[in-house]
Amino acid sequence: MNPQSLRITVWNEGVHEARQDPPAIAGYYPNGMHGAIAEGLAGHFPGALIRTAVLADPEHGLSEDVLADTDVLLWWGHLAHGDVSDEVVERVRRHVLGGMGLLVLHSAHFSKIFISLMGTTCSLQWRNDGERELVWNVNPTHPIAEGITGPIVIPEQEMYGEFFDIPTPDDLVFISSFDGGEVFRSGVTFTRGRGRIFYFSPGDQEYPVYNQAEIRQVLANGVKWAAQHGIERQAPSVGNPQRGSFGS
Amino acid sequence: MNPQSLRITVWNEGVHEARQDPPAIAGYYPNGMHGAIAEGLAGHFPGALIRTAVLADPEHGLSEDVLADTDVLLWWGHLAHGDVSDEVVERVRRHVLGGMGLLVLHSAHFSKIFISLMGTTCSLQWRNDGERELVWNVNPTHPIAEGITGPIVIPEQEMYGEFFDIPTPDDLVFISSFDGGEVFRSGVTFTRGRGRIFYFSPGDQEYPVYNQAEIRQVLANGVKWAAQHGIERQAPSVGNPQRGSFGS
Amino acid sequence: MNPQSLRITVWNEGVHEARQDPPAIAGYYPNGMHGAIAEGLAGHFPGALIRTAVLADPEHGLSEDVLADTDVLLWWGHLAHGDVSDEVVERVRRHVLGGMGLLVLHSAHFSKIFISLMGTTCSLQWRNDGERELVWNVNPTHPIAEGITGPIVIPEQEMYGEFFDIPTPDDLVFISSFDGGEVFRSGVTFTRGRGRIFYFSPGDQEYPVYNQAEIRQVLANGVKWAAQHGIERQAPSVGNPQRGSFGS
Amino acid sequence: MNPQSLRITVWNEGVHEARQDPPAIAGYYPNGMHGAIAEGLAGHFPGALIRTAVLADPEHGLSEDVLADTDVLLWWGHLAHGDVSDEVVERVRRHVLGGMGLLVLHSAHFSKIFISLMGTTCSLQWRNDGERELVWNVNPTHPIAEGITGPIVIPEQEMYGEFFDIPTPDDLVFISSFDGGEVFRSGVTFTRGRGRIFYFSPGDQEYPVYNQAEIRQVLANGVKWAAQHGIERQAPSVGNPQRGSFGS
Repeated sequence: MNPQSLRITVWNEGVHEARQDPPAIAGYYPNGMHGAIAEGLAGHFPGALIRTAVLADPEHGLSEDVLADTDVLLWWGHLAHGDVSDEVVERVRRHVLGGMGLLVLHSAHFSKIFISLMGTTCSLQWRNDGERELVWNVNPTHPIAEGITGPIVIPEQEMYGEFFDIPTPDDLVFISSFDGGEVFRSGVTFTRGRGRIFYFSPGDQEYPVYNQAEIRQVLANGVKWAAQHGIERQAPSVGNPQRGSFGS
Repeated sequence: MNPQSLRITVWNEGVHEARQDPPAIAGYYPNGMHGAIAEGLAGHFPGALIRTAVLADPEHGLSEDVLADTDVLLWWGHLAHGDVSDEVVERVRRHVLGGMGLLVLHSAHFSKIFISLMGTTCSLQWRNDGERELVWNVNPTHPIAEGITGPIVIPEQEMYGEFFDIPTPDDLVFISSFDGGEVFRSGVTFTRGRGRIFYFSPGDQEYPVYNQAEIRQVLANGVKWAAQHGIERQAPSVGNPQRGSFGS
Repeated sequence: MNPQSLRITVWNEGVHEARQDPPAIAGYYPNGMHGAIAEGLAGHFPGALIRTAVLADPEHGLSEDVLADTDVLLWWGHLAHGDVSDEVVERVRRHVLGGMGLLVLHSAHFSKIFISLMGTTCSLQWRNDGERELVWNVNPTHPIAEGITGPIVIPEQEMYGEFFDIPTPDDLVFISSFDGGEVFRSGVTFTRGRGRIFYFSPGDQEYPVYNQAEIRQVLANGVKWAAQHGIERQAPSVGNPQRGSFGS
Repeated sequence: MNPQSLRITVWNEGVHEARQDPPAIAGYYPNGMHGAIAEGLAGHFPGALIRTAVLADPEHGLSEDVLADTDVLLWWGHLAHGDVSDEVVERVRRHVLGGMGLLVLHSAHFSKIFISLMGTTCSLQWRNDGERELVWNVNPTHPIAEGITGPIVIPEQEMYGEFFDIPTPDDLVFISSFDGGEVFRSGVTFTRGRGRIFYFSPGDQEYPVYNQAEIRQVLANGVKWAAQHGIERQAPSVGNPQRGSFGS
């Protein structure tokens, strides 16, 4: 795949930015979290098509046309999970099952789309105390870990801790620890239908994590891994074949 | 766990039986498929509490009280998936996430409860042509395969074939082949929340599969594996612990 | 399985104890680490047959007769991996592939038997600095985690950190963190042949970890999980079946 | 990665070819199985460096220099596993753990290198009766399955059947069925150290399987998946870091 042909959509509810909550957010994220994420991806994939979309856009910016033209969708949400329309969630789900990649970020563990694809509560333990997070690579051959050697050091972060109620991931790529001693499976992959899903927990409205080079590297790796450019977008479906109807 | 203390509920939509469709069903399943399954389990777990329930019962026979008193629920459905009330499905799902075992049988791959726990389409290929099914044990150390050596030979069965759109299972226990050459991951396990789930495909309204000794052995093994008798029934939930609040 | 019928062998090289290195070891482990582990198991399985064996015993205490009469073998080694005879290692390996359970403890990650079953280097990062270890349960439905809720707090321990070079485990049960911020997959399971293997990292010659109740609980859970009492002890082997030779 | 920069070595014991056993082999494999495999890869990777090597070559053609210049090694063996020198096996193992990709083909399930990386007996059931093999894709999002839709139909093949004594694979990509009704996990992946391993069972000295376009496609996909061009070739190793020595 030629990375220049990638079509990426970065979705953010955009509520923290609209409310200027926290007040400092406009300082480290002048173009919103989606802007910072998109900027990071643009640095890795010059020439790629990178869109952003927010909750307030018509159809949340996720029309059928946009999704059909998206290889990988990134999703950030926190305050407004309940305001995302069920129709859009169902549309995104159909595209994921049909082969669109999905990166689920931080507090989007509680998004409708992630819960519907996982089948679990997706609950976890949390504490907002500005703790240092260390992101350890426990799968050095994984494409998503490419170029990540020592732990990624995030000076201040919200703590996310186990038990994280997700299905057993296909691949466990990163495990984080926090000052308080908690641990978290912070980088995990899944497949659903024909779609590839990567959940990555670092990233928060209060800490400028998406400006960090290693985090941008992981997101770019995740996009490359999740993309299946050029495949027909179609979810698996029921068939009723005749005997011996293959290979003829 | 003392198998005598097991509390098992066998659920069947019971529509094929009510309609006598196929007509011969009353011959090989005089007490319905649920009756045959319950009889098989009773042979393996004398003294256990084994209930049956059908769609036509009030609340489909799956009241809060019944589920709270159930260690493992078995689910058979085919014609009437859409008639199962969303409220009951949500109740069953809550109990599974809280630790109730669930065995999903044959055409129940398309039940609301299974799809909601898997997050995929759960679609597959099928053909009803009375083909021989061979069920191969590919995981001989697995508790669900205990006592199963050579392949289980089912003289006539509906064919279920790949691609079976499920998440990567935690454990792959059985793979089936059919006369026509198709293969199917016919025995697979998952965990969701605190609950253990076993999908097992053999079993159909047209062929008396649930009367077969090896099939009854696998179902009994599955029940024993899925049961967590005595644990508190509670789904994982969000927590906001103080620093260092453990181990004090 | 009746836990009273369990036959357990606890193997320890016994070199730290023989050398009184560290000097304090006789204080917290008056009967050696194997003695403490055996005592813990006896508390959980009254009536079970629990042997101990050490490197200095004839055939290291692991004769064909002893292994044939062992459902689960526990293995602790550190200073003397190279002194274990290849013949005994091969004998243990044959029994594991034939269905004997194996618990590999702490520094035994570098034992000949573990490396030969894993196929990797089994290397890791370490630091002996008396750090607090927190052992988090990330798999609450797993039989080995039964009864373990909050993290197990080990006040002082040697640090073991990632990257731990093992194959992807079948089940990841525990993840540890250490004061210094490192993380470690500290409780992991594998199957090889017909045998079940559990690696558990807590436990060291300098810190009295095996006297701790939660650690003893995990080891007892591990033994119960790994035991396949009553199965024929035979490794998988090549077969050349005739067509249709099954099910006749 | 630019496929043109790939460096591939196809190893074949070459004994069937040397003995002209079976006599017809020179007809369908005029350049040996390694020649046919190399030709297939050359069609997919024009410009790549593709070597072949056989048992009779000095150092079996697998000197340190050759391995250091190999991104992915393919391995075919059958009659002469025991004649492969332990020194060369250990060298190959070191390179795999350090990041060289390895494709293990057909009867090489019993090669020294595969057994040493798996830790199991690698035994299976077999029958040479010219049966049709159907290779089903059960993992449509996997890079190794790219472009493979319906089953691959191999008109005549040796039967390989379960139980195949391998560790639980990281990814199960293909399952085969045979005329006689047996099934086999015919395409499976593993990681060991920093290396990626793909076992693929189709291919035999008696049937011209490696001339088939879909088989060549799978081998090319496997090579692309296993290659980690440009990484430092170094197995994971022990470290004894100071506290806080990361991220400074």
